[in-house]
Amino acid sequence: MEIKNIMNTPRIAEVLKNPPMGEDISVQGWVRTRRDSGNLSFIELGDGSSLANLQIIAEPVLPNYTDEIKKLTVGCAIEAGGRLVASPAKGQDVELQASSIKVIGWAEPTTYPLQKKRHSFEFLRSITHLRPRTNALAAVARVRSALNFGIHDFFKQRGFYQVHTPIITTSDCEGAGEMFTVTALEPEQLKKETPYDRDFFGRRAGLTVSGQLQAEVYALAMGRVYTFGPTFRAENSNTSRHLAEFWMLEPEMAFCDLQCNMELAQTLIRNLIGRVLEDCAEDLVLFDRFVAKGVIQKLETVRDVDFVHMTYTEAIETLQASAGKKAFKFPVAWGIDMQAEHERFLCEEVAGRPVIVTNYPREIKPFYMRLDESGKTVAAMDVLVPGIGELVGGSQREERYAVLLDRMEAAGLDVDEYGWYLDLRRYGTVPHSGFGLGFERLVQLVTGMSNIRDVIAFPRTPGSAPC
Amino acid sequence: MEIKNIMNTPRIAEVLKNPPMGEDISVQGWVRTRRDSGNLSFIELGDGSSLANLQIIAEPVLPNYTDEIKKLTVGCAIEAGGRLVASPAKGQDVELQASSIKVIGWAEPTTYPLQKKRHSFEFLRSITHLRPRTNALAAVARVRSALNFGIHDFFKQRGFYQVHTPIITTSDCEGAGEMFTVTALEPEQLKKETPYDRDFFGRRAGLTVSGQLQAEVYALAMGRVYTFGPTFRAENSNTSRHLAEFWMLEPEMAFCDLQCNMELAQTLIRNLIGRVLEDCAEDLVLFDRFVAKGVIQKLETVRDVDFVHMTYTEAIETLQASAGKKAFKFPVAWGIDMQAEHERFLCEEVAGRPVIVTNYPREIKPFYMRLDESGKTVAAMDVLVPGIGELVGGSQREERYAVLLDRMEAAGLDVDEYGWYLDLRRYGTVPHSGFGLGFERLVQLVTGMSNIRDVIAFPRTPGSAPC
Repeated sequence: MEIKNIMNTPRIAEVLKNPPMGEDISVQGWVRTRRDSGNLSFIELGDGSSLANLQIIAEPVLPNYTDEIKKLTVGCAIEAGGRLVASPAKGQDVELQASSIKVIGWAEPTTYPLQKKRHSFEFLRSITHLRPRTNALAAVARVRSALNFGIHDFFKQRGFYQVHTPIITTSDCEGAGEMFTVTALEPEQLKKETPYDRDFFGRRAGLTVSGQLQAEVYALAMGRVYTFGPTFRAENSNTSRHLAEFWMLEPEMAFCDLQCNMELAQTLIRNLIGRVLEDCAEDLVLFDRFVAKGVIQKLETVRDVDFVHMTYTEAIETLQASAGKKAFKFPVAWGIDMQAEHERFLCEEVAGRPVIVTNYPREIKPFYMRLDESGKTVAAMDVLVPGIGELVGGSQREERYAVLLDRMEAAGLDVDEYGWYLDLRRYGTVPHSGFGLGFERLVQLVTGMSNIRDVIAFPRTPGSAPC
Repeated sequence: MEIKNIMNTPRIAEVLKNPPMGEDISVQGWVRTRRDSGNLSFIELGDGSSLANLQIIAEPVLPNYTDEIKKLTVGCAIEAGGRLVASPAKGQDVELQASSIKVIGWAEPTTYPLQKKRHSFEFLRSITHLRPRTNALAAVARVRSALNFGIHDFFKQRGFYQVHTPIITTSDCEGAGEMFTVTALEPEQLKKETPYDRDFFGRRAGLTVSGQLQAEVYALAMGRVYTFGPTFRAENSNTSRHLAEFWMLEPEMAFCDLQCNMELAQTLIRNLIGRVLEDCAEDLVLFDRFVAKGVIQKLETVRDVDFVHMTYTEAIETLQASAGKKAFKFPVAWGIDMQAEHERFLCEEVAGRPVIVTNYPREIKPFYMRLDESGKTVAAMDVLVPGIGELVGGSQREERYAVLLDRMEAAGLDVDEYGWYLDLRRYGTVPHSGFGLGFERLVQLVTGMSNIRDVIAFPRTPGSAPC
């Protein structure tokens, strides 16, 4: 079948934004709804480029009116040509008076799972291959893509280089023991003794939990870098907050202390939110109306206010002082790893805005964070945001060779394996910092979607990797 | 030690490009060389933002001149403050007359592997954590980052959405059986019968070889999408052309046939090369002088000419007709999978420019490529470029349900496992196309680097994943 080349046809978002009134155009997309009224057939056509559809008016004079057009149902693919005119109906400015409608692909309505009604997000999770055809999930995809571009643009403007840190790694940055193993061996071969010695990499390798250590290599050569890619946790948690595979943004800066690190994190978050408020305004209205009432105002607050700063010690004192008013599920004491309920309380109830908590106890943070003067805390910083809790976790890195070596040995690391990491402190070491931003959490913050599985295209969770 | 915040200091690239003459500035970076002449010390300072360094003049009046400055060696980190003035020496326009030089990190010259001399790329591969501090590898990193941004910008301008397709997958798109297995089990558990039933995902999962199948899901919902991320091959090839982990760009377009696909590929390649010729001009001069003579002119050709088109059948005939003049290692006959020597001959010797070969025999291409009318070939297209061979491999996808089902069954696929993929042809199917561009090959094309391990930060190869 002859069809137009999509690169030469306007997208519906463009047609609606800058309508070529009175001109003959062709559009391509999928039927969202069709209804007959009077002697006409009204088709709402969408192509994924915007939430709003283009209304197409089909008249009975069209040669395939009875045989095809009147049989179009939700999900059918068509190419429509005709003249763009002002629409007399309310709810839209323009409509297309069709001179031809070519049916490209049918969608049998008795079996097609998506019909004109609201489907639950839970149901849509069972058809991840069709859900981007719905309004909400397409809006998520557009917002996610906008944030993605915003990240690259933000860092480009500030002289950062992107570095692609490896996915397959033999370093466990967080030391949490939640790495997937990567192997080229068959189960039969894995039965032998020390199987990984004969494996592809000659040793046991796994999927990265963070690109930070390798990003430090490039920060100490090029000053300002970031890595943005998938990271992994083999954590058997079947919750709305956990994924086995998720994307993480990790900037890393030489000549940058904790203060510099915090400033960058705040600037980044506010900048990205400012962008989507502008670029994805139509989609955000959908989220505000149907998913999370008030999300736009919440985002405007994050964009406009200065984040509140407090030390971990101050945060714990604040939580303890609130214990009378607020019942926490997890007890509060200096030394705990704060839970989401604590983090959310601090920014939602105490500050009413994002909060940056600094100087956490050394015992609950990884070996690479810079030891504070006191010896009790490290130069860590977490950015907590309303509705989510921790969005960013970062630190100034330990740049002092002797201190780092001590901490690695205390953490039980095989120091010989990390000679390359120690070298960064032996040769031209400088104060440097960085952080990790959980990308799905950012998409959740922006969209108000409550389940993390709904903000990534193909979620990977315990028992589930269907494609 | 108190240091400036890097976000508030100018990068050396900026200082050299738009010199704030006569102003007091601070710069931070690493010593590339230092020499004494007359009564002065001359420091070449680099910070990774450009190939060119900033010359710093230190006079003996500086308080730490004897104790520190005169002991600075290659790789030491410093912060220098002073006035930017016109340089009387040739080879540079400006220099910094230092009023202070703070030594931040030393680099013991007797053990620091990088000294002021040329190191072989092979040696540098043994110190991947230090090699971005060299001129050539830093230039590679800058070019790679520029291409990375160029890709996102190119697609943004054309209304594409980025989709993050999964790394962990249960689909083997290419059917080549070269997938790494991903497991959360210990060797002890893997010894049992059907171990993967009890594994994290409840079945055997692996690392993706391509995001195409999942990208098709989004193309058929949003029209124009791309995925750009790491892909993997457990192929035991220890050559200068193979990596176990490499980045691939995969655009996928609905309403797009083979012609449309080829046009996009050509536009993309020419656009990206045009960008780096402009944005990375200084780095390209280095490659042209020291790595691959003539690379700039070769790139200008790729940017400016139309690619030559020929069918696979024509390509084979051309190779056969050349057999008298050129001795190929691998024999040529209709039906072979062309080798790099054939591909390079076609574009280097025959066409003198990139060549797009189309309509390959169905037997040597995957099941998802659209069957041509003849039934013997498929609507595939490979873009071959000088010096590299295949840079892009793509096709129009089989959009006809019955034909696709036949081909999947013939390929021995478990059709039940691919119900989601078949659904894309059951509901609103449209002609659609896409391609994969090997990102490292693109970086090789641009830089002229001959070993693929030198254009990725941390190469993963048989026996090697050191960090």
